[in-house]
Amino acid sequence: MAYAVVAHYRCEPADEDTVRAALLKVREHTRAEPANLAYEVHAEVDRPGGFVLYEQYADRAGFDAHKVADHFTELIVETVWPLLTERTVTFAEVL
Amino acid sequence: MAYAVVAHYRCEPADEDTVRAALLKVREHTRAEPANLAYEVHAEVDRPGGFVLYEQYADRAGFDAHKVADHFTELIVETVWPLLTERTVTFAEVL
Repeated sequence: MAYAVVAHYRCEPADEDTVRAALLKVREHTRAEPANLAYEVHAEVDRPGGFVLYEQYADRAGFDAHKVADHFTELIVETVWPLLTERTVTFAEVL
Repeated sequence: MAYAVVAHYRCEPADEDTVRAALLKVREHTRAEPANLAYEVHAEVDRPGGFVLYEQYADRAGFDAHKVADHFTELIVETVWPLLTERTVTFAEVL
């Protein structure tokens, strides 16, 4: 069963450009991963600093492989997460 | 710019089958709408009664057209919403 990740991120407006650029770079790298089925980056409407990620992988193992990729560590863990004021992540199975 | 909707729904475990069936029916109808780009239904991992919808439309007008479709009224408004104990919806632009 395909495995999805929905992440709601928020940062200070001053950090928006840095976060947006990093997320778009991660999108590029992640879409090249063999088990990735979707990686969408969104800016929330009417909510400065609000981003939403929608990710889909062929299965849970595909997501686990994503989490050990260099681009995940460099761009998400080391660049984006430290700039977030809010982070909510939901894991779900695609029906 | 493509327009996305992320909805987090929760219902009582006793209503899961009814909600799941209605959401899968809406998925079928919505994917046939001209402006729909994606409609994914998910069951949250480790959270009975938790569902996540990921929807994408060519633009905001496409979503507005979805909201006046009969299947939205019959299945979402009249069938699913009354069974929900939690409902959080985020609107966002696809980057």
